[in-house]
Amino acid sequence: MGNFRRVPVGIVGASGYGGVQLVRLLMEHPEVELVYLGEENSTGKAFTSVYPHLTNMVKLPLEAIDPEVIARRCEVIFLALPNGLACQLTPALIEKGCKVLDLSADYRFKNLATYTSWYGNDRSDHHTANNAVYGLPELYRDRIADAQLVGCPGAYPTASLLALLPLFKQGLIVPETAIIDAKSGASSAGREAKTHLLLAEADNSLSAYSVARHRHTPEIEQICSELAGHEVTVQFTPHLVPMVRGMLATVYATLRDPGLVGDDLTTIYKAFYRNSPWVKICETGIYPQTKWASGSNVCYISIEVDPRTGRVIVMSVIDNLIKGHAGQAIQCLNIMMGWDETLGLPKLGFYP
Amino acid sequence: MGNFRRVPVGIVGASGYGGVQLVRLLMEHPEVELVYLGEENSTGKAFTSVYPHLTNMVKLPLEAIDPEVIARRCEVIFLALPNGLACQLTPALIEKGCKVLDLSADYRFKNLATYTSWYGNDRSDHHTANNAVYGLPELYRDRIADAQLVGCPGAYPTASLLALLPLFKQGLIVPETAIIDAKSGASSAGREAKTHLLLAEADNSLSAYSVARHRHTPEIEQICSELAGHEVTVQFTPHLVPMVRGMLATVYATLRDPGLVGDDLTTIYKAFYRNSPWVKICETGIYPQTKWASGSNVCYISIEVDPRTGRVIVMSVIDNLIKGHAGQAIQCLNIMMGWDETLGLPKLGFYP
Amino acid sequence: MGNFRRVPVGIVGASGYGGVQLVRLLMEHPEVELVYLGEENSTGKAFTSVYPHLTNMVKLPLEAIDPEVIARRCEVIFLALPNGLACQLTPALIEKGCKVLDLSADYRFKNLATYTSWYGNDRSDHHTANNAVYGLPELYRDRIADAQLVGCPGAYPTASLLALLPLFKQGLIVPETAIIDAKSGASSAGREAKTHLLLAEADNSLSAYSVARHRHTPEIEQICSELAGHEVTVQFTPHLVPMVRGMLATVYATLRDPGLVGDDLTTIYKAFYRNSPWVKICETGIYPQTKWASGSNVCYISIEVDPRTGRVIVMSVIDNLIKGHAGQAIQCLNIMMGWDETLGLPKLGFYP
Amino acid sequence: MGNFRRVPVGIVGASGYGGVQLVRLLMEHPEVELVYLGEENSTGKAFTSVYPHLTNMVKLPLEAIDPEVIARRCEVIFLALPNGLACQLTPALIEKGCKVLDLSADYRFKNLATYTSWYGNDRSDHHTANNAVYGLPELYRDRIADAQLVGCPGAYPTASLLALLPLFKQGLIVPETAIIDAKSGASSAGREAKTHLLLAEADNSLSAYSVARHRHTPEIEQICSELAGHEVTVQFTPHLVPMVRGMLATVYATLRDPGLVGDDLTTIYKAFYRNSPWVKICETGIYPQTKWASGSNVCYISIEVDPRTGRVIVMSVIDNLIKGHAGQAIQCLNIMMGWDETLGLPKLGFYP
Repeated sequence: MGNFRRVPVGIVGASGYGGVQLVRLLMEHPEVELVYLGEENSTGKAFTSVYPHLTNMVKLPLEAIDPEVIARRCEVIFLALPNGLACQLTPALIEKGCKVLDLSADYRFKNLATYTSWYGNDRSDHHTANNAVYGLPELYRDRIADAQLVGCPGAYPTASLLALLPLFKQGLIVPETAIIDAKSGASSAGREAKTHLLLAEADNSLSAYSVARHRHTPEIEQICSELAGHEVTVQFTPHLVPMVRGMLATVYATLRDPGLVGDDLTTIYKAFYRNSPWVKICETGIYPQTKWASGSNVCYISIEVDPRTGRVIVMSVIDNLIKGHAGQAIQCLNIMMGWDETLGLPKLGFYP
Repeated sequence: MGNFRRVPVGIVGASGYGGVQLVRLLMEHPEVELVYLGEENSTGKAFTSVYPHLTNMVKLPLEAIDPEVIARRCEVIFLALPNGLACQLTPALIEKGCKVLDLSADYRFKNLATYTSWYGNDRSDHHTANNAVYGLPELYRDRIADAQLVGCPGAYPTASLLALLPLFKQGLIVPETAIIDAKSGASSAGREAKTHLLLAEADNSLSAYSVARHRHTPEIEQICSELAGHEVTVQFTPHLVPMVRGMLATVYATLRDPGLVGDDLTTIYKAFYRNSPWVKICETGIYPQTKWASGSNVCYISIEVDPRTGRVIVMSVIDNLIKGHAGQAIQCLNIMMGWDETLGLPKLGFYP
Repeated sequence: MGNFRRVPVGIVGASGYGGVQLVRLLMEHPEVELVYLGEENSTGKAFTSVYPHLTNMVKLPLEAIDPEVIARRCEVIFLALPNGLACQLTPALIEKGCKVLDLSADYRFKNLATYTSWYGNDRSDHHTANNAVYGLPELYRDRIADAQLVGCPGAYPTASLLALLPLFKQGLIVPETAIIDAKSGASSAGREAKTHLLLAEADNSLSAYSVARHRHTPEIEQICSELAGHEVTVQFTPHLVPMVRGMLATVYATLRDPGLVGDDLTTIYKAFYRNSPWVKICETGIYPQTKWASGSNVCYISIEVDPRTGRVIVMSVIDNLIKGHAGQAIQCLNIMMGWDETLGLPKLGFYP
Repeated sequence: MGNFRRVPVGIVGASGYGGVQLVRLLMEHPEVELVYLGEENSTGKAFTSVYPHLTNMVKLPLEAIDPEVIARRCEVIFLALPNGLACQLTPALIEKGCKVLDLSADYRFKNLATYTSWYGNDRSDHHTANNAVYGLPELYRDRIADAQLVGCPGAYPTASLLALLPLFKQGLIVPETAIIDAKSGASSAGREAKTHLLLAEADNSLSAYSVARHRHTPEIEQICSELAGHEVTVQFTPHLVPMVRGMLATVYATLRDPGLVGDDLTTIYKAFYRNSPWVKICETGIYPQTKWASGSNVCYISIEVDPRTGRVIVMSVIDNLIKGHAGQAIQCLNIMMGWDETLGLPKLGFYP
């Protein structure tokens, strides 16, 4: 391949589930080279002390988080940190010329007051935040292409918005009727030891949580509002499901035109996502299961209309750690770098 | 215990999951004696050829289904048969004086035309059906007390209706806004071998099914309509969750009075269910998980209000095979016999 | 029931999985009344702050652990504490006349040097320990009947020993060939938050742990040695299986008499356990699954002979939290009190 | 890439779990082109009628199984058929010049009498079978390189033999003491609907099966005997574990030299597998979990010595559908074609 040069990339916050997915996907990506792994508290240890199965496969150590060092070694940096940390690190990285893909909530909001009211932290990086683009390629492909800083959506907003975008964009529903009943596997909650996430507690069980106050709500509303042209409030309820990976959003909304049938909407969705290689619209009557998406960057969507109630029901499934997290960030990277949007990302899930 | 006489009871369709639950619960019930197990295709075999772990504990054979024989030996008979079979057997049993608790859909509908339009079978047993009572004790305790034939609700309608009853009864919501997003463990689908229910297919996966056309919908609507005083249409979506037992209904509806808060509704629910020993209303902010209910006949309900959207969100969990099936039938039996409603039924789940 | 008096019992260490099982089983036991729950760090809180689903069902608070108070209120006390704590508390309780059932390792060893070499703690309660009986009713029913202090076996030793007892007792195997490959659900590891027990880590995974050095080994060897009449060393390997409850021990040993067939051994086992109501020997060729035992105090055993290798393979399944823990302690209590050994204990598992 | 030509390959029996893994891996393999999918009973249907999530990704139909057609279109053919079918098809394919990789048991045995005594079918293709090579690359890399027909090992023999090879090859153990306690996820049992594999039956449960008579036993013994230089009988017990993928073999054997310690054996294993890129030997004291291997072609092995018993305990984990099935077949293909052994196969598992 001649004098081919791989783009040097790094990950800050490499030891969580998002981190280990990024490591795997970036190592298999044909255009990048993973050169840096940062982690605050594990500094000096090998990455493989956290994930021993990758011994001799991932040879990078976990290093201290120093913007100077990062910017010198990485052209692109992924931030997989808890909310409130990326915004402390990003301004320096941006100033030094890095491309930054932040997987936390810090750069998802146009209006930092919204961020502060839901996340509690005050913010002083208004200029940086102002230039951030919301990393949902199916909606903002062009903006992402020109961005230096991308705030990647959470898994819930990704599944929810991909189900809702055509409805809001085309004005097909009564906005305030939108209800998202979302279900996620336990890996979305991360790798920190918590009692309610123990297998003995969470297996063979199911519950809702953060009802009417989950922090992903304003992120969904921000995009819906932009598409609707006015402030939209949605109902969002997350559930913890006894499985490792996978996410399903079941979305309900009242159709403006009660004469539409499922096939009409399937056609509209197929047209809307015609140029989106990672969204697959199912034939009417075929409902996706989360296992279909596991291991791939694909979002499967199925649309049903209930003529009895005049509602559309949209089901959207993703792998919460890939299209809902690491894969989507890499999809954004591909776009930022002018590469094919599908480069280095898994197309076929690892069924079963 | 002196000249105490246990009531002789039998089960038709004993080899399914409903059957094996009934066997266990009835054997532990202090006032009944299980004397008959019927099964069409397994006749002559021991019950324990189907459930070998009960060898030497359940000594009854699986017998042919003969109303004559059943009526002679059983004062009470539970029918755990596929839809469309109970209605062929029941008229003869009723005529011979048996008390009948049917766990199929056959005797759940006041209007048999509704049954036929959703289930496909024509029916000629109008007289018998007319005298059937819908076996939801929390609503029809009095009618059940006087009934000879009870059509026990399905698991989904039980979880859904217990969440909805106070709202409809008190006129608290806009009826047509009611949406039920329900999730069930795989045991609800029965013990027949089907590919999509294999562990390798269904584990670590999640999907909706029968969207906008699940047969439990009209059963829910029938009760809501009766309470509302007019025809009500609800949205009902079932999901298959990778767990053995348990069911959660997440119910959404728009409040008529947007000034109500969660505590108001919790108070209303507690009052509504004051005399219902099997319904437990959680304190506001505590959401039930299905594991809580596993193994018990309890239904846990939590109510949340979202002031941003003006909606109430009700979460209701049950053990799909107990309060959603066998336990509820026994609860009805207790009422029919004038016994304490809690007799012989497990109060404490088998957590974890 | 006239002037019937229930025996007052208490639990120290009530908030773990062993504790919550004891609570459930003791509340359903017809001869006892649960009057005391002790917990070091949760003192003053309600038991239901830890298990909210039991609100209004279990009304006892979590109290400080004071031998004076315990002995005044409880005739019998169950100790469900981490290893090394029961031995500090027990001498005082014994002296004050309590019957004590300890579920930790502290009173399982005849030779405290063995305890100290595997558990690390030095012990000064030799007199107390000397009078403790090993709480395996199928072996020491008579001793338990006369005991004031019972050291209940762990779940692994229970499953392993019930599989091994007839072999050692009858001298059927070459002792040093005994290998126990044991598999347990995650609830055996307790309710403390640990990363490797998270659902996202432990589900869809399987591994061995503590190979060649698990602390349950000496407990198994102590009993085998007593039966063999000389020091016996066994191989014991535990595995963590992605399920909540249940334990299977697959036991291998070389037969002294290679002419024995499976039916011979099944007959021998049935005879050996003739008077043990909680052990069920399967017919030859029927292998037990852990689900059979879930929720009951039953141990299912199946015996196979491999004529090609001259080995016997014994499979033994229990519910790790019932026959492997709380249920067995109650079985011991029944024997200590002169009650029927099966009193208040679940016979039928909650299949599926 | 200039006049690069991909090797045309096909799969017979494409609709099972082995088939869908082969499809995914072969589509991602850089040197082959998947051109044919055969399936007896689904002929004419699209592959995606069986796996709808691959719609528009896998466009091949399911075709009739005609050796003429296969040989014309495919240079290499994978047979993922039930036992007893490959041997009917293979002679014609071999004669027409195809390279054949059979994933059934049909070509695993040197001595067809062994095959017939365990599998029941008489065989007439002695000449073809004679030229087959057992497809365990870590042992027979050279033979595979020259083979036209490879009989790929089952998942259990792969996990078991990789654990045993160094022991037998170096004469480190007393051969007849080898015991393999193996545990597999449910996908090994295939996609056919069977009651005992339903999620409601198999989840939260665990059992042994085919004790002392599983058909993978003679395959393991054949290789061990060859290495030992005399007939060896091993004990092999499979277990069904409640997870989708993954396999663990826990292997026990008595060391000839009781002075060996774990580190000695770890060193021996590392040397033995020095040139085997798909086998990773863990550091002493680190035990593999099946999740490590999920999604990759890696086999992780850990060795422990118990000085008390003089036994070695080897733990070996693989993904039963990759290194235990489809991946290993492709590894063999790579060797047959003179490609790098790791080509097109996943190195990093999809943890978690």
